[in-house]
Amino acid sequence: MNLTHIEHIGIAVKNLQESIKKFENMLGIKCYAIEEVKDQKVKTAFFQIGQNKIELLEGTEPDSTISKFIEKRGEGVHHVALAVNNIEGALQELKEKNIQLIDEKPRLGAEGLHIAFIHPKSAGGVLIELCENKNDK
Amino acid sequence: MNLTHIEHIGIAVKNLQESIKKFENMLGIKCYAIEEVKDQKVKTAFFQIGQNKIELLEGTEPDSTISKFIEKRGEGVHHVALAVNNIEGALQELKEKNIQLIDEKPRLGAEGLHIAFIHPKSAGGVLIELCENKNDK
Repeated sequence: MNLTHIEHIGIAVKNLQESIKKFENMLGIKCYAIEEVKDQKVKTAFFQIGQNKIELLEGTEPDSTISKFIEKRGEGVHHVALAVNNIEGALQELKEKNIQLIDEKPRLGAEGLHIAFIHPKSAGGVLIELCENKNDK
Repeated sequence: MNLTHIEHIGIAVKNLQESIKKFENMLGIKCYAIEEVKDQKVKTAFFQIGQNKIELLEGTEPDSTISKFIEKRGEGVHHVALAVNNIEGALQELKEKNIQLIDEKPRLGAEGLHIAFIHPKSAGGVLIELCENKNDK
C-alpha cells in the first residue's frame, strides 16, 4: 500500500472543551474544527501541525469506544491514522497478508475521510487507522 | 513555539527484531535504521512515512523506561514526538506557562536529534517529546 504521511494522532480525552484549552495553551496553536461523528459516538477537535493533525476525542455515550478506552486505560493516545492513496487496495493487500482488520470495508469518518481500522493484535498493540481523503479527487 | 510536523510516533515493543518484521510486512515498507541509545537503555528501529516516522523501541534493561511501560501497559504507543524549530525557546515558553517538563534542557536522542519530554500530566495523558534537528543547520 502507498502510505503518504501520518494523517493524525487520535487522543482520548474526558472533557473535550477543557482539553482543547489545555492543548491550545501548551502547543500555542488554535483548534481549527470541532465535529461530532454520531456513528462513532464521539465529538472531535482538530489541531493542524504542518501536514499532520492531532485529533482529540470525547465519547458522547458511556458505551462509546472512547469512553470505554478511558475507563480502562485513562486519557492518552487512542489511535494513529496513516494516510493512503487507495484505501480499498490497501485493505485488500492487508487481507491477503492475513492482517486482522476491524473494518473490511472503508466507512466515513471525521472530516469526510474514508477510514478503516487495523486490529491492534496485528499491529504491536497499536490501533492503526488507514484513511484516504477522496474530497480533493 | 513553532511546531513544524509530527517527527515520529514511538511504539514500545517487546522484541525489536520480531516487531520490525511485523511492521515491514504490514506497512509494506522497510525499516531504514536501527540504533541503540545507551543513555535511554533502548534499541530503536525507524520507518519513514513521507515526512514522518514510526520508531519502534525495545528496552535493553529491565529498569529501562520502555521495559517498565510494557510491564504496566503492554505494547503500544509510548510517545509522540513533535518537531520544533527552536527547542530551547520552546522549553522556555512552556516553563513560563507552568507546563510540567521531564527535561528542562534538551539532551541527545536517536538520530542525533535534540530532544526533551513534556510530562503526560500536562498533556492529556500523552508523553510528548519535542525535538529539533540541528544536523542540517
